[in-house]
Amino acid sequence: MSEGLSLWKDTPTRQAILDFIARITAQESPDFIPPTERIANFDNDGTLWLEKPLYIQLQFGLRAIGKMAVEKPELRERQPFKAVYEKDMAWLGKAAADYAKGDMSGIMTLGAGYLEAFDGISVEAFEAAAREFLNNAQDARFQKPYKLLTYQPMVELVHTLQENDFQVFITTGGGRDFVRAVCEEIYNIPRSMTIGSSVTFQYAEDAQGVAQVLRTKEAEQPIDDGPGKPPHIHRTIGRRPIMAAGNSNGDIHMLKYTVGHKGLTLGLLVHHDDPEREYAYDEGAEKALQLALKEGWIVVSMRDDWKTVFSPSAG
Amino acid sequence: MSEGLSLWKDTPTRQAILDFIARITAQESPDFIPPTERIANFDNDGTLWLEKPLYIQLQFGLRAIGKMAVEKPELRERQPFKAVYEKDMAWLGKAAADYAKGDMSGIMTLGAGYLEAFDGISVEAFEAAAREFLNNAQDARFQKPYKLLTYQPMVELVHTLQENDFQVFITTGGGRDFVRAVCEEIYNIPRSMTIGSSVTFQYAEDAQGVAQVLRTKEAEQPIDDGPGKPPHIHRTIGRRPIMAAGNSNGDIHMLKYTVGHKGLTLGLLVHHDDPEREYAYDEGAEKALQLALKEGWIVVSMRDDWKTVFSPSAG
Repeated sequence: MSEGLSLWKDTPTRQAILDFIARITAQESPDFIPPTERIANFDNDGTLWLEKPLYIQLQFGLRAIGKMAVEKPELRERQPFKAVYEKDMAWLGKAAADYAKGDMSGIMTLGAGYLEAFDGISVEAFEAAAREFLNNAQDARFQKPYKLLTYQPMVELVHTLQENDFQVFITTGGGRDFVRAVCEEIYNIPRSMTIGSSVTFQYAEDAQGVAQVLRTKEAEQPIDDGPGKPPHIHRTIGRRPIMAAGNSNGDIHMLKYTVGHKGLTLGLLVHHDDPEREYAYDEGAEKALQLALKEGWIVVSMRDDWKTVFSPSAG
Repeated sequence: MSEGLSLWKDTPTRQAILDFIARITAQESPDFIPPTERIANFDNDGTLWLEKPLYIQLQFGLRAIGKMAVEKPELRERQPFKAVYEKDMAWLGKAAADYAKGDMSGIMTLGAGYLEAFDGISVEAFEAAAREFLNNAQDARFQKPYKLLTYQPMVELVHTLQENDFQVFITTGGGRDFVRAVCEEIYNIPRSMTIGSSVTFQYAEDAQGVAQVLRTKEAEQPIDDGPGKPPHIHRTIGRRPIMAAGNSNGDIHMLKYTVGHKGLTLGLLVHHDDPEREYAYDEGAEKALQLALKEGWIVVSMRDDWKTVFSPSAG
């Protein structure tokens, strides 16, 4: 095991992860768990890939809203189409600032615009749009396509767990179908093991009589965040996980549900403390960081525990 | 491939299934599909296990409703607790007869009682109750525990597909968590690959502060039947299947969605035409049987295509 996690510095964090894997997988270990029950859940935004300065999906949404406002002038009369079309940074900045203070109204308006932009299209058409964006749109600071801005030590951890017969699921607060467009390519995680928030769907037959699943503009409840994560995990997996990794307050309930499993468990919290290679921020993670101490979750320091952050090809 | 499906008689049906598998899996075949995309969906009631004279889950529900009526006398004032407690076969028979005629009211009342009987318990407690029932409760005619009343040729087909790197999912109109209690044991299908109808859930922490996922008595919409099946399939799998097997009108949309996949697909419809070894009935499958001819779905005759129905240990 000692040669595992080559992208991690030789710190107590790395050692704790390797010890956990060894104790779960060794047949003679009192903590041995069979592969069927080796369930691990990873949050996505800020845990597996970049979430600053804006969620990647929000960048995708802003483009879709802008495109729609160009195509349908009548939409420019109302938000969020008006602000995005006019590049009204005051309105957009206020939505972001309000969100940071716990006022969801501006973000909800943006979210509704996003759902409206893809209302009624087939799941295959949405997948193609998401993949096109993730393949081609670039982050301004790192100058690379978004799909390359995954945290390589975390991706290595996913693969190490898979090699040790863990079943690794993504549990994203963001849109499940957005992540599914690339999850196999960038993480080696199947679409069926990618859980997340979603719209509801409608069955329909097209003009040729071919059955289709169409998106609606209605968000499915609960969203896969905070106390919604454990219900989503149960619904998709049907087992309580033994390992979970997150980075924000939205991951607290998932972490609690995981460490509530009898026997040995592992909770990880990625701490963004690396302004040089990525970002440093505690906003939205204050409570999780506080709880980590009390609950025994391991805090991963991006700065101190990782040899690298992004893939070299990502600059 | 010719020695596959040993529990199937040497008929055109068996040959068509084996041909499909061979064409999908042979590298040099123009119909070759990589394992990631080899998605198959099986309905459960009447396709993988017995559904007569009542759905197995309904037997489970009647016991739970009866037990609750014993424990809480005040419930005996209202339906369905009153009828079940008093063994009022006229009321229960009318609910079943109305259902056969398309009037759902009696069945809805029974369903609400079922959901109420398990309201607020943890998903683990529900799983234990379902497993206890499926292990021990016996079918009156076959005198065996319900979990042994699976159709062995269909189980063999599931395993044959798995050996050929298909990902085989269950898509049941019944309760997902009821089937999950035994799906690994009786089908070798993981819980995470068992899709179905469900209640919604609540996150809660118990008196010891341990996080729990609790059942509610509210049914999640849509239920996983008829036009609800393709949305459930998309939500869980994220890919259009290339094979599906069902037995009733509730499987029509799943079959249409499957054969809507570009390229070679296979739709199977199990026809209950074997009164000696199982049952003979077309009720609830009339439209599906009619469509099968038009759409090219293969009708599996229980009587003519299967050497055996149940496991010998199931009598």
